[in-house]
Amino acid sequence: MSQLESTAQPLSDAERARFLTALGAILAGESLLHDAEELRPYECDGLSAYRTLPLAVALPATLEQLQATLKICHQMQIPVVARGAGTGLSGGALPHSEGLLLSLAKFNQILEIDQANLSARVQPGVRNLAISEAVAHLDLYYAPDPSSQIACSIGGNVAENSGGVHCLKYGLTLHNVMEVNIVTIEGELITLGGASLDSPGYDLLAAIVGSEGLLGIIVEVRVKLIPKPATIQVLLAAFNQLNDAGSAVAAIIAAGIIPAGLELMDKLSLQAAEDFVHAGYPTDAAAILLCELDGAEAEVGQQVEEVRQLLQMHGANEVRLARDEQERQQFWKGRKAAFPAVGRLAPDYYCMDGTIPRSRLSEVLEKMAQLSEQYQLPVANVFHAGDGNLHPLILYDANNDGELEKAEQFGGDILELCVAVGGTITGEHGVGIEKINQMCVQFNNLELLQFHALKAAFDPSGLLNPGKAVPTLHRCAEFGAMHVHHGELPFPDLPRF
Amino acid sequence: MSQLESTAQPLSDAERARFLTALGAILAGESLLHDAEELRPYECDGLSAYRTLPLAVALPATLEQLQATLKICHQMQIPVVARGAGTGLSGGALPHSEGLLLSLAKFNQILEIDQANLSARVQPGVRNLAISEAVAHLDLYYAPDPSSQIACSIGGNVAENSGGVHCLKYGLTLHNVMEVNIVTIEGELITLGGASLDSPGYDLLAAIVGSEGLLGIIVEVRVKLIPKPATIQVLLAAFNQLNDAGSAVAAIIAAGIIPAGLELMDKLSLQAAEDFVHAGYPTDAAAILLCELDGAEAEVGQQVEEVRQLLQMHGANEVRLARDEQERQQFWKGRKAAFPAVGRLAPDYYCMDGTIPRSRLSEVLEKMAQLSEQYQLPVANVFHAGDGNLHPLILYDANNDGELEKAEQFGGDILELCVAVGGTITGEHGVGIEKINQMCVQFNNLELLQFHALKAAFDPSGLLNPGKAVPTLHRCAEFGAMHVHHGELPFPDLPRF
Repeated sequence: MSQLESTAQPLSDAERARFLTALGAILAGESLLHDAEELRPYECDGLSAYRTLPLAVALPATLEQLQATLKICHQMQIPVVARGAGTGLSGGALPHSEGLLLSLAKFNQILEIDQANLSARVQPGVRNLAISEAVAHLDLYYAPDPSSQIACSIGGNVAENSGGVHCLKYGLTLHNVMEVNIVTIEGELITLGGASLDSPGYDLLAAIVGSEGLLGIIVEVRVKLIPKPATIQVLLAAFNQLNDAGSAVAAIIAAGIIPAGLELMDKLSLQAAEDFVHAGYPTDAAAILLCELDGAEAEVGQQVEEVRQLLQMHGANEVRLARDEQERQQFWKGRKAAFPAVGRLAPDYYCMDGTIPRSRLSEVLEKMAQLSEQYQLPVANVFHAGDGNLHPLILYDANNDGELEKAEQFGGDILELCVAVGGTITGEHGVGIEKINQMCVQFNNLELLQFHALKAAFDPSGLLNPGKAVPTLHRCAEFGAMHVHHGELPFPDLPRF
Repeated sequence: MSQLESTAQPLSDAERARFLTALGAILAGESLLHDAEELRPYECDGLSAYRTLPLAVALPATLEQLQATLKICHQMQIPVVARGAGTGLSGGALPHSEGLLLSLAKFNQILEIDQANLSARVQPGVRNLAISEAVAHLDLYYAPDPSSQIACSIGGNVAENSGGVHCLKYGLTLHNVMEVNIVTIEGELITLGGASLDSPGYDLLAAIVGSEGLLGIIVEVRVKLIPKPATIQVLLAAFNQLNDAGSAVAAIIAAGIIPAGLELMDKLSLQAAEDFVHAGYPTDAAAILLCELDGAEAEVGQQVEEVRQLLQMHGANEVRLARDEQERQQFWKGRKAAFPAVGRLAPDYYCMDGTIPRSRLSEVLEKMAQLSEQYQLPVANVFHAGDGNLHPLILYDANNDGELEKAEQFGGDILELCVAVGGTITGEHGVGIEKINQMCVQFNNLELLQFHALKAAFDPSGLLNPGKAVPTLHRCAEFGAMHVHHGELPFPDLPRF
């Protein structure tokens, strides 16, 4: 079986010139960049610890230009990395040094708003928030809301299967798209999914969502629109024990209530957020929960009371209901500013993204505290508690010798811990280049080979985003040899699934 | 590209004997059937117009037996057709005359109920309703409810991505499973999906759901459990015009209300149902709608009033709220008995299953009435109106020369009509053998080749359920030559998507 890792050899000057000439015949002036200075803005995405200059950047404006560009790359066997807004946090849009960076920035039109069928057709470069803005007058919106939603593009959201605060109730990107058009590396246009509930044949739409640019280039997306809820309320609960906050989360879900958002912040992160934006958080608390409830007025009123009781039963020493929309926004302001706020506590931080079964929450938090001791690096926890999606922020100083490496190793341990309790190494940020080694912990060789077979079905020569998302068996063998050298699995004391 | 249709040659007597001997070494006595009389109960599934006796029936009881059985089939290149409860309506479990029928009936254990994570691990042969029964004491249930839910198995539900009355609100099988273990034709065990919200790597779980036994044998399923709603109410609305019922459906959805069920029955079907089970339906109506609302008490009360107003605004001349649980069950009894009730109107009926965008509902109903005139065959309509999933029942008499063929052609036209308005040829019953020709209308050659590539990634020699679900290009060429012989697409007067 082919390993599908990049096998691209450095191009000779003549080949490079021939490649640029061929592209130049399709893409006019500013749609094709190849000077180092022009390439610089594209050298990284949101995971800025990794940087590479691509061979060139293409910014096609039409489907025909895009198809012709891919055909040239396919013919000359040049790797292609697609890029939306470049806000990804796992390095999925990191350029390939011998490849083309394909920007979808000019595919930025909303093509159709279909009110009757509650959907919209949009180009991949349309910003996430722009969709909701375009349908606000119809009292509709697009539900997934990554924290980068002002900037991030819907094409990137599809590629990474992005989530957000509200995906507990409204699902990930996967659950909010109906149809995706892709262009294959051979330049062929294919439609996956459809405008209806079910689609016959294999569900390749789902395979594309979250495939991180490895299977095809997304050129059009039909998203679901949903009616804005009539009422939105937020409760803020303060706890003296982090564990109590964890069991309150479990109790709310077990009571059959699915909040629109259910977020947990630990002491370090809530204090940092309060210092930064003055959200009104109780800074003496060990943890706070933010619980948003939305829906019909009568329903929300009833749920607010139920949740309030559950919070109090599980040890909350203070429960506040935002009195008005302004205070609601204020409560969320702290949560939304948590990452930059924690960033002020140390020269550098490393944001992790893993998911665990809700029932293992307190166990994992305890183990993480032990690891923090062991590595002598503080960790702040801000996370989507309702769906078990952790975002530990590891604080370090890259100027101290070896601290970056220590932080990365700590992060890797956290991801392996997630896998050990039956969770996964990503919740919403994707694998990219960042977590490719941990894929070897998550999946066995047979499962990885199955991924490779799917990859080969779409992109047999492995030109699309090589080296990302799905590791080769060779890479896993090396990684495994390094980490399991005494034949021991990580965290041998924890029960397995 | 390989066409992946069955290329199995008839076995010689010696080969057949060798195959049965090899299986016999694994499967004791009654776990291996090969006498014609024993094979008879397996000759068809719910699509009983098609019947074939398999070479043999295997009923393994353990994972090891199942893996060994598949390894033998792979080694000897014997086709394998998996079978759950055999209630499928599209012929997905129709045996292969030169193949093994693999029954999952002995894989019938509920392995784990995980209340904290709202999930259960079950074997594929567990009946759909048995899951809800097993967790009823926890006030939980498994949401998808095909009308065959007393009998159908969860493995079959996963293979067909089954729906039901409540999938408008709660989703299809795809949206209610978290993890599936399969055994490949090579006998390897693979886990797809996981216990957490997101899973890295390509979403092969979604590819398995609805793959109709073509990619692997399902041996374990982790399903989602959801809390039982506190309150359930049903409204019955009667209309003088079928069209009005259609626009009431659109109005309810546009108002942001997602009913638990929203079902439409036309005159022919509601009269048949009333005659059969005396559900209390108004038999002078042109159509009735059943609208079920569930959730918190306050929410349901508010929604009942909103829906009542919308129904009246859109021409309902009578709206009744079921007064108690007994009347609610009575209202549903008629809907659930609609198929057998319609069956009493003619010697034979042909149940179709297609999906269309809600906004095209009245147009499609009108066109269907024209087709009914043209073919001189009555059609009764009972359908999941909320999600655009049609179930036209074509009435005919197979004893009249050529009427079966006319009914099949009428059915084919209905499916092509669904595609023409931007819908699909299946809502919840799958493609199987029944709708394989219409797949050629739904998908172009490139899209079919993409399906074949995925198939090849799982089952390169095409041994799993050959001839079902995804047609070869050769078959489509033949079908296309037959149906598009003047170069015209079907229904040229309708706008395209």
